[in-house]
Amino acid sequence: MLPEEVLQQAREEMLDWQGSGMCVMEMSHRGKEFVSIAESAEADLRDLMGIPGNYKVLFLQGGATSQFAMVPMNLLRGKSTADYINTGSWSKKAIKEAGKFCEVNVAATGEGSGFTAIPPRSDWKLNPDAAYVHYTPNETIGGVEFHSTPETGGVPLVADMSSTILSHPVDVSKFGVIYAGAQKNIGPAGLTIVIVREDLIGETLPGTPSMFDYKNQADADSMSNTPPTYAWYLAGLVFKWIKRRGGLEAMAERNQRRAEKLYNVIDASDFYSNPVKRENRSRMNVPFILANADLDADFLAQAKQRGLVTLKGHRSVGGMRASIYNAMPEEGIGKLIEFMAEFERAHA
Amino acid sequence: MLPEEVLQQAREEMLDWQGSGMCVMEMSHRGKEFVSIAESAEADLRDLMGIPGNYKVLFLQGGATSQFAMVPMNLLRGKSTADYINTGSWSKKAIKEAGKFCEVNVAATGEGSGFTAIPPRSDWKLNPDAAYVHYTPNETIGGVEFHSTPETGGVPLVADMSSTILSHPVDVSKFGVIYAGAQKNIGPAGLTIVIVREDLIGETLPGTPSMFDYKNQADADSMSNTPPTYAWYLAGLVFKWIKRRGGLEAMAERNQRRAEKLYNVIDASDFYSNPVKRENRSRMNVPFILANADLDADFLAQAKQRGLVTLKGHRSVGGMRASIYNAMPEEGIGKLIEFMAEFERAHA
Repeated sequence: MLPEEVLQQAREEMLDWQGSGMCVMEMSHRGKEFVSIAESAEADLRDLMGIPGNYKVLFLQGGATSQFAMVPMNLLRGKSTADYINTGSWSKKAIKEAGKFCEVNVAATGEGSGFTAIPPRSDWKLNPDAAYVHYTPNETIGGVEFHSTPETGGVPLVADMSSTILSHPVDVSKFGVIYAGAQKNIGPAGLTIVIVREDLIGETLPGTPSMFDYKNQADADSMSNTPPTYAWYLAGLVFKWIKRRGGLEAMAERNQRRAEKLYNVIDASDFYSNPVKRENRSRMNVPFILANADLDADFLAQAKQRGLVTLKGHRSVGGMRASIYNAMPEEGIGKLIEFMAEFERAHA
Repeated sequence: MLPEEVLQQAREEMLDWQGSGMCVMEMSHRGKEFVSIAESAEADLRDLMGIPGNYKVLFLQGGATSQFAMVPMNLLRGKSTADYINTGSWSKKAIKEAGKFCEVNVAATGEGSGFTAIPPRSDWKLNPDAAYVHYTPNETIGGVEFHSTPETGGVPLVADMSSTILSHPVDVSKFGVIYAGAQKNIGPAGLTIVIVREDLIGETLPGTPSMFDYKNQADADSMSNTPPTYAWYLAGLVFKWIKRRGGLEAMAERNQRRAEKLYNVIDASDFYSNPVKRENRSRMNVPFILANADLDADFLAQAKQRGLVTLKGHRSVGGMRASIYNAMPEEGIGKLIEFMAEFERAHA
């Protein structure tokens, strides 16, 4: 989802970006017009997230799935093992891919709880020789989220923030690498943001493609080849939209409020339920199940009639899931809650 | 460059794709709306290029530079060496990257001519044990182009068609792999088309990232993770635009005519010159130099005043370069020729 305001602006500028007579898609990525778009996007992101000067910000392609390989290829730096925290479906994908490049130590797993809870930090079995610790701050399918940044005793912390980036402030200095596919909380698919501490880059595994080398990308300002220019431009519009709305503190407050509204409805009802441990509940993805699964199809069909779409839970967990990323308007939550109450009255 | 008609349509559909109420960027890539967009784009490309049924068509990310690594990672299949034809700047990049993964045999090089000619097929020293033969049908910087498809005696032929795809018909069955970054002749940056014969895929080098595995991408219909949906949609609009204009035969005829016009002006003049051997001249990129390089800055400034932009030659060769990709309107060539004649009269 992209904010309506951003889509409107993109539409207006489609054939003529700011009087240049050019469409952003037609600009040379090395021309001064696109370079100014690229630089302001980076500056706005640095400003929003408070990214320290010793971190590089990369605008890449390939999604989080490419990062699952790029992280070990760049961060092992002579070590042979890395720690991973398994909190669900996205963690598992990261773990599987990392296994191609190193020995993976799963230092903690939520598997025992069916991924309805995050293993407490005190139970983690971190390896002090690990090259890094990888975790997934938010799992979109199970709907669990870390509400604080784990300490790792100096081992670089790597986070797949695809589904939480820009939803609340984070202290970037606590991380070695933050990466995020843009298509959930930023906007356009085909863009991946990587924020990496510069002392960690420069030593890759043999056989690392040059496109997968953070240093190579950083040295070329993410333009070692033609970058995804239009997605970069749209991301820049989204960053400005967030700034106009008060930045990440304002986003966090709004996201907290929206999520609470939904969880309150679910918790107050015997008809709907959410299996996730309260302190691990996601503010971005709210899964819930109906007391009677036979009503699922009806629920989805009636929701759709009111413009409430993509509510079907992932096939691996069933039920429903409301994904309430930054761009989701508050009215959308109101409409959903109203519909849920009405559906419950009719079927409970 | 994108055809004006395509940009207009994209603009109109920005907030509401065909009455769906959704922006293409907001569609789930697994929803029926986007799947229909993706499938028609593939069907139209298959139709335009006459792609046989035993070839997979992939819509990937990462540009040709990613393919420079993906080709050896997927096509070596137990062999240790590959043949490369060096015809200029893009070939050299492909050769450099391949060297990370295998022994590269440069079977022919245009270096002796300063890359102003393509080494004739009879001079190539192909290795019958090579896993594949890689070449660059068109070099954008030097402005040399193959005007026929080389024979390789059964060794799979791999072509970087980034700057010629869809500019004229090719017999796809002669190739093992055709790949192309979309940003020259198709449109949006951030999309890479790969056409690969299906018997060549399924065996990758150890340590190949899953995103770099053709088989993995083919099995997932290029949706092993979120694909660059908007660029895929735009590419589909461009494919339909080419079909409306008569397909690749019509494109070829038009491109031949446009290029001839430019070369005729250059050849008829003592003021402009093009160093490339006649039978190897590119129909997409026409480099030319002014008799007096001191006039270059003036030429560019005056051209810009008439809306003729991006005429500066690559820094490695200097002079000028007219890139006349499919989307360049014929009037553009007319304007350029007119300006060149006028500038010559004023300065010759």
